[in-house]
Amino acid sequence: MNTFGHIFRVSTFGESHGAAVGGVIDGMPAGVDIDMAFLQAELDRRRPGQSQLTTPRKEPDRVEILSGVFEGKSTGCPIGFIVRNKNPHSSDYENLRHLFRPSHADYTYHVKYGHRDHRGGGRSSARETICRVVGGAFAKMILRRLGVEVTAWTKQVGNIVLEGDYHTFDFSQIEQNPVRCPDAEVAQQMADLIMEVKGQGDTVGGVIECVVRDCPPGWGDPAYGKLHACLGAAMLGINAVKGFEYGLGFAGASWRGSEQNDVFLPGFTTATNHSGGIQGGISNGQDIVFRVAFKPVATLLREQNTIDVDGHATVVKARGRHDACVLPRAVPIVEAMAAITLVDAYLQNRSARI
Amino acid sequence: MNTFGHIFRVSTFGESHGAAVGGVIDGMPAGVDIDMAFLQAELDRRRPGQSQLTTPRKEPDRVEILSGVFEGKSTGCPIGFIVRNKNPHSSDYENLRHLFRPSHADYTYHVKYGHRDHRGGGRSSARETICRVVGGAFAKMILRRLGVEVTAWTKQVGNIVLEGDYHTFDFSQIEQNPVRCPDAEVAQQMADLIMEVKGQGDTVGGVIECVVRDCPPGWGDPAYGKLHACLGAAMLGINAVKGFEYGLGFAGASWRGSEQNDVFLPGFTTATNHSGGIQGGISNGQDIVFRVAFKPVATLLREQNTIDVDGHATVVKARGRHDACVLPRAVPIVEAMAAITLVDAYLQNRSARI
Amino acid sequence: MNTFGHIFRVSTFGESHGAAVGGVIDGMPAGVDIDMAFLQAELDRRRPGQSQLTTPRKEPDRVEILSGVFEGKSTGCPIGFIVRNKNPHSSDYENLRHLFRPSHADYTYHVKYGHRDHRGGGRSSARETICRVVGGAFAKMILRRLGVEVTAWTKQVGNIVLEGDYHTFDFSQIEQNPVRCPDAEVAQQMADLIMEVKGQGDTVGGVIECVVRDCPPGWGDPAYGKLHACLGAAMLGINAVKGFEYGLGFAGASWRGSEQNDVFLPGFTTATNHSGGIQGGISNGQDIVFRVAFKPVATLLREQNTIDVDGHATVVKARGRHDACVLPRAVPIVEAMAAITLVDAYLQNRSARI
Amino acid sequence: MNTFGHIFRVSTFGESHGAAVGGVIDGMPAGVDIDMAFLQAELDRRRPGQSQLTTPRKEPDRVEILSGVFEGKSTGCPIGFIVRNKNPHSSDYENLRHLFRPSHADYTYHVKYGHRDHRGGGRSSARETICRVVGGAFAKMILRRLGVEVTAWTKQVGNIVLEGDYHTFDFSQIEQNPVRCPDAEVAQQMADLIMEVKGQGDTVGGVIECVVRDCPPGWGDPAYGKLHACLGAAMLGINAVKGFEYGLGFAGASWRGSEQNDVFLPGFTTATNHSGGIQGGISNGQDIVFRVAFKPVATLLREQNTIDVDGHATVVKARGRHDACVLPRAVPIVEAMAAITLVDAYLQNRSARI
Repeated sequence: MNTFGHIFRVSTFGESHGAAVGGVIDGMPAGVDIDMAFLQAELDRRRPGQSQLTTPRKEPDRVEILSGVFEGKSTGCPIGFIVRNKNPHSSDYENLRHLFRPSHADYTYHVKYGHRDHRGGGRSSARETICRVVGGAFAKMILRRLGVEVTAWTKQVGNIVLEGDYHTFDFSQIEQNPVRCPDAEVAQQMADLIMEVKGQGDTVGGVIECVVRDCPPGWGDPAYGKLHACLGAAMLGINAVKGFEYGLGFAGASWRGSEQNDVFLPGFTTATNHSGGIQGGISNGQDIVFRVAFKPVATLLREQNTIDVDGHATVVKARGRHDACVLPRAVPIVEAMAAITLVDAYLQNRSARI
Repeated sequence: MNTFGHIFRVSTFGESHGAAVGGVIDGMPAGVDIDMAFLQAELDRRRPGQSQLTTPRKEPDRVEILSGVFEGKSTGCPIGFIVRNKNPHSSDYENLRHLFRPSHADYTYHVKYGHRDHRGGGRSSARETICRVVGGAFAKMILRRLGVEVTAWTKQVGNIVLEGDYHTFDFSQIEQNPVRCPDAEVAQQMADLIMEVKGQGDTVGGVIECVVRDCPPGWGDPAYGKLHACLGAAMLGINAVKGFEYGLGFAGASWRGSEQNDVFLPGFTTATNHSGGIQGGISNGQDIVFRVAFKPVATLLREQNTIDVDGHATVVKARGRHDACVLPRAVPIVEAMAAITLVDAYLQNRSARI
Repeated sequence: MNTFGHIFRVSTFGESHGAAVGGVIDGMPAGVDIDMAFLQAELDRRRPGQSQLTTPRKEPDRVEILSGVFEGKSTGCPIGFIVRNKNPHSSDYENLRHLFRPSHADYTYHVKYGHRDHRGGGRSSARETICRVVGGAFAKMILRRLGVEVTAWTKQVGNIVLEGDYHTFDFSQIEQNPVRCPDAEVAQQMADLIMEVKGQGDTVGGVIECVVRDCPPGWGDPAYGKLHACLGAAMLGINAVKGFEYGLGFAGASWRGSEQNDVFLPGFTTATNHSGGIQGGISNGQDIVFRVAFKPVATLLREQNTIDVDGHATVVKARGRHDACVLPRAVPIVEAMAAITLVDAYLQNRSARI
Repeated sequence: MNTFGHIFRVSTFGESHGAAVGGVIDGMPAGVDIDMAFLQAELDRRRPGQSQLTTPRKEPDRVEILSGVFEGKSTGCPIGFIVRNKNPHSSDYENLRHLFRPSHADYTYHVKYGHRDHRGGGRSSARETICRVVGGAFAKMILRRLGVEVTAWTKQVGNIVLEGDYHTFDFSQIEQNPVRCPDAEVAQQMADLIMEVKGQGDTVGGVIECVVRDCPPGWGDPAYGKLHACLGAAMLGINAVKGFEYGLGFAGASWRGSEQNDVFLPGFTTATNHSGGIQGGISNGQDIVFRVAFKPVATLLREQNTIDVDGHATVVKARGRHDACVLPRAVPIVEAMAAITLVDAYLQNRSARI
């Protein structure tokens, strides 16, 4: 199932070392101004090689919009797009053709499909997330019209955690450092850790936090379409994600109801926001706040024990170009998937009342 | 969107104080033996009034199967079912008609729909989860045929946490105590805490852990249909859930790749299971392990400040019958949603190869 | 797949001789006045035993609404409903347990599912269409608010055809005769034919025509969601339907473009309506006009050669209660499916522009 | 909604005068041999300029497969593809920017979206059907493995009808003439008529017939997923289609049940095939037979009265390159949509039994 969304729907294709990645954005309402510079800028935030911290694979990641836009505005027809893969080094992966990298998708694809593209992880590669960023950029153009803002940042890398209430953060700092952390000092510690880990041929995980500001109340559905369930599915679909929580999340499991409840105040606002902006699966007009846990990248530039396709013990050492930590590049992906989810909820909510 | 699943699909209806809850299970394969005693037993695990720890609302929760079963076997046609609401005390809720309980869905339903059934929370009530348990019971009848077992338990209530590796737990203990914790001693501490909190008119949250054993490799899809994304959406759709993680989850964010990677061993197994049984979104044949965080119930049997539908400050005190802690009754719901998700993944996987 | 629609969705269950038929209507917008008398009246139009022309099976077909309506208005939550089967004569079908009626679904269900409910056709029975009429009645309550009217009538029974332009018909006559033909004289000829065929233990087919008046322009989607494709799928899903055409339909295949084209006139109207109200898959504001062909009922009250489940030649003669002609009772079903399709298109069109 | 299918799903994009048309084929099972020569040959059957009978627009229609195929076999991952538009003459359409061609989609797109690409019909152009042919070619590669054959031909152009039972036709003749009619003599009459009509700046419609041979029994679903309802939706979604019928279709409306029923014979076959290979919505193993009615192309190379976007009366005369009759090029499109529908039904049927 390579489609995400119900009314605003992004269907994608593409492997790491194929000719291109791309997709179809269906359900884009007509009449939206299409900001091509913004679209490319979003892709540049995700692009490899943007700093020392990321994989050195050199990809310009230029997007070509093939349909659905006419004279600068969306037409309501589906938007086709492709991004060519320019710099695959497929031979780097020849040694992985018959092996399974530990904790990677090599084995499960092999079992499921019988026939797989082993080069660069094939479909399981994070290059697929280019398409999410393209979809997210179109979604953000809609949210911009509605005054809704989605902002994510790196909250944790390994053991280094940015503590504190996000209201005290300076969001303008996020794009000022390669880690995408709103605190310059903590960002430097994170960067140092990533470089250290990278030097060891190892990798490290972390946590991204995201806030949606000025989301109107009423978005999201009861039962199986709860807004946070959709956001959770969106985030858990991103490569390397291992957990999702919103509002107080796991920490709130040990709170009492009397502590956690957000008392309503005149003006239809709340005294606190432990709910993370969602109650009963529907946005309540407060900031939507959630966190996403990423495991360390599975591919290591050091030797690991493993098996081959025949089940025999062997040793694997990756030769390709890999990130030691995906967090910095995952920030725009988290935002993109949040934006797609929100636009879908917005359009669905148009049918809530007659 | 009141349907869950793609091929095995559960569509549900019903409010807390309406005539009945029920639904349609579509995609049930033909030829499955239908175990009505098991189905009712599953509902009894979720039923209110089963112990001192739960709401005293008295509901027999007898399910009536209306179609799709003939002479003891499924026919491949949709299964219709209803469970009558027998014991609503709607007058208990008259004072909530024009108020919003803090952190409940009252306000968001009001904003979204304009017109809501305020009695017992209406559609946002956990009575809706009856339908999930019915759907889950049918899913479990399929999984039983495939040898797949789904087991959940209460891992945390408030600050009381069941520590340790689940391999050391005695799963046969889970149903021996009203908390559904595999350790009798910890279960007693949890029960004591729930009773204490209940005596204060307060509520408390917790964490449920779930393990799926003997799941074949190959279930789940790349990209947006990752098995853990589907499980996450399933869990986050359950009332009061605030977080989901699988494998190492949030804790793994601070691990190195070299520590977290699960080395493959001859026999297509792994030395460790930090991945939680899923790699690249597809089951790898190891145990699938995940955790779900529940917030404390929002409805308190004590006074809270709030506002009315006109935005004026007021005070609310619930009179209805409510759980002080949903964890014990949520265990079968977590299992049910996991079972539905797994059967859907199983059926989808039948199309992976020609 | 027992769900019809995308935003306004009807999921149904039930067999002819099971406990009940019913379903879930999801996507009903909140705030619609629910007219229970109208709902029951629609069911009464479809009910068996309403005249000499129809099956003598006695079913009151009383619908019970179980959710989604509160204090006379829809709440936006799913509407659950059931209609009990009161008068099954299952023993009438015992002789069909191991046989296949010619041109019925007996054989194909047997091959597909291996295990089937042979009583009264099981899921393949036209009793399933009760649920379509319920869904259609809710859809009509929405269309009423929008000023859109759906009217169907019997245009042909066997060789008896109601000729002429529908603008000359008196629609108020449709419900004045048991055949549901707007011309009393032709209706009588049709009724006579049905009684004659019935007396022979035989059956006869026909054509229903339907017009949708005052549908706004803009409903329907390009490509695969064309309004007439959705209407066609809706109609072809009705039991015994063999063909669908709109506007000039098959007859137009021999016209020239210069004859068939509907010239636009000032006022955004057209000089003719050969298009049947739909251009490029989208309503153009003119009357939507289509026709649906029904084959004769397959079950005959006379002997037919056939085979049993082992493939041996045998003879079948039905004993149950069957219609000699489904047209009269199919008129409200055609209207219902049209109404469901239109409401779905209306709600989808809300997302066409920002 | 630019996606067709449930498990085997084709999502498409592209306008007549945009950069490219293309799409994503999702749900292609892994391990299928990909026959690129066959794929291109299918496109060549649909290509403009292949004979005097078709539009002179010169398009090579070379397809580029961007993903989902590795070393000659499908991988189970989505197949992305594009076909560049090489020969748009957009200036030909400048005069249509503010006009509505009679019976074309110009007006309805304008009303629905407010902003449209007027060049060459934009999204409503039959260039979109390239994507259907690509999807259909992949579907045919699967059907080939299963031994299922889909064959369509031109049965009627204007008043010239190929009479007779298709069993007497020589299917090898179909591709031997530009009309794609299995009878060379009738084909010549049809070609003459098309040339005559073309000379008048006029257009003409017709009927395509299609037969699916060696389809196993069991494909298709009860209720809303009936195989003929899916086929009907597929056909009615093709540009210019006005009607669909299967088996006896509209003609059978005047038959008696005793005449129309297909008596079963030992060997699980039937004496006749009035059912058109489908009973109760499920294939019965006999040939699936259906017919599709096409109206004449709306765009005429002669003057027609119409209005402009302000509603003022004016005159339109097309300057572009247009077919005088779409039937010859629609034959592969009908086959393609049938193949996609059948593969989807085949994959869905894999879940019918456990």
